Amino acid sequence: MRAESVQILPKGTKALRVYLSVRDQITVGDLRDGETLPSEQKLAEAFGVSRVTVRRGLDALAQGGFIERRAGSGTKVRARPAVAQRAAMNFNTLMPQLVEMGQKTTARLLSFTYGGAPDFVSLAMGFKRDIEVQIATRVRLAGNVPFSHLTTYVPAQIAQNYSENDLATTPLFQLLERSGVQIKEAHQSVSATLAGPEVAKALDVEVGSALLSLRRVVRDVHGDGVEYLAGLYRPDMFRLEMPLMRVGQGSARHWEPAIGKDEGGI
Amino acid sequence: MRAESVQILPKGTKALRVYLSVRDQITVGDLRDGETLPSEQKLAEAFGVSRVTVRRGLDALAQGGFIERRAGSGTKVRARPAVAQRAAMNFNTLMPQLVEMGQKTTARLLSFTYGGAPDFVSLAMGFKRDIEVQIATRVRLAGNVPFSHLTTYVPAQIAQNYSENDLATTPLFQLLERSGVQIKEAHQSVSATLAGPEVAKALDVEVGSALLSLRRVVRDVHGDGVEYLAGLYRPDMFRLEMPLMRVGQGSARHWEPAIGKDEGGI
Repeated sequence: MRAESVQILPKGTKALRVYLSVRDQITVGDLRDGETLPSEQKLAEAFGVSRVTVRRGLDALAQGGFIERRAGSGTKVRARPAVAQRAAMNFNTLMPQLVEMGQKTTARLLSFTYGGAPDFVSLAMGFKRDIEVQIATRVRLAGNVPFSHLTTYVPAQIAQNYSENDLATTPLFQLLERSGVQIKEAHQSVSATLAGPEVAKALDVEVGSALLSLRRVVRDVHGDGVEYLAGLYRPDMFRLEMPLMRVGQGSARHWEPAIGKDEGGI
Repeated sequence: MRAESVQILPKGTKALRVYLSVRDQITVGDLRDGETLPSEQKLAEAFGVSRVTVRRGLDALAQGGFIERRAGSGTKVRARPAVAQRAAMNFNTLMPQLVEMGQKTTARLLSFTYGGAPDFVSLAMGFKRDIEVQIATRVRLAGNVPFSHLTTYVPAQIAQNYSENDLATTPLFQLLERSGVQIKEAHQSVSATLAGPEVAKALDVEVGSALLSLRRVVRDVHGDGVEYLAGLYRPDMFRLEMPLMRVGQGSARHWEPAIGKDEGGI
């Protein structure tokens, strides 16, 4: 279990802000291992809070192992071990892939039900009202650390072709294509959101942490929606990597995604 | 000015969590206009807080215009007007483009200085120690609403070829290419983060709001880093849109980005 999963958050809205803001700068890499934090006085000025409040935030950061206070040499950032296992999305499979070699991601099925499609799914997929969908929620882990919370919505008529066990072991695209679905295109929309209570628990982060949010609509050759994915990713564990090439001449010069087919698109 | 810019946040960490979590679900569209919120009792159970705390969170949401309470018919979600002006990134220019027609984005230069490159920039760009860079911070607006906070780092030797005024009016890629730089490739890394005090003020959001974070390293034909971008985007105003096509046969079947050159890649 990681240190922050048993972490007590600082009391008070202002101290929580200090804590979350600094912690986030550490986990995204703006503050690097060994770097010295600004003084309590400077932090107090930057956040517009008292030094007592800053100290409460720093106490929680120290307790969580994000910073180290040394008499005489100030407060140093300590890099997080979890960052070493960062995953990225492979654009050829749209599956996460660990950036570091030698380790695989695994999935854990949290829930699996059939029911009516929520309004935002029906709208995006172009479903008729009251269509039944299979709703599956999985958490994906790198080593033992959860990094993504994925909820998929698939029309029940398609989903009946594979089992709960298939879903835990095989990428959904393969299950769909094996079921005779002719996938044509997908549209991904990437944004950011805050972790709510349920997702925070599943991803082992605090409520109110920043998460990368990905929505994907997959359509078949007839233009029908066959999968809707709502994915939430821990920014300290997962990034979307996008290599791009500058191509064309003169006024036609523009950017194109550079997806190396051999190297897996990372 | 939007309602939430003069909004008073709920007092107390727990009420702030309720407020931010529900607000975020509204701004990313999980909760849609007219939808009914769960009862106070159900929200209290979901968040593991008291009904009094839920009510404090809902009071702030109602005051900010995110929800409307009607006697007898429960609490309804009210869609945000700002969402109608959402921008997305055009993959041909890597510039934001309004999804709705007829309106342009504008930029405001917040700061413009020369100085040493921060460590995380030097590391990503492969700079030698102590290289001088131009550091410019801009906020980009759709209509009057800020949606992105962009800080660019360009080696001083290149940046001397264009002025502060050029930067406010012309895309940086054009300025670089006009300066004789032969841009070859870029790498974008997309993540999420929380708004710190300065960025929150510039983007007119609360501290601790979720932001989409984009880091871009641009290299020339010699492999030298010519631009580093650290971009932060409001999720209620901006999304990264990624259309994809399923191509190839059999085991070679995979995804490829579908970038329509004529339609601007949105």
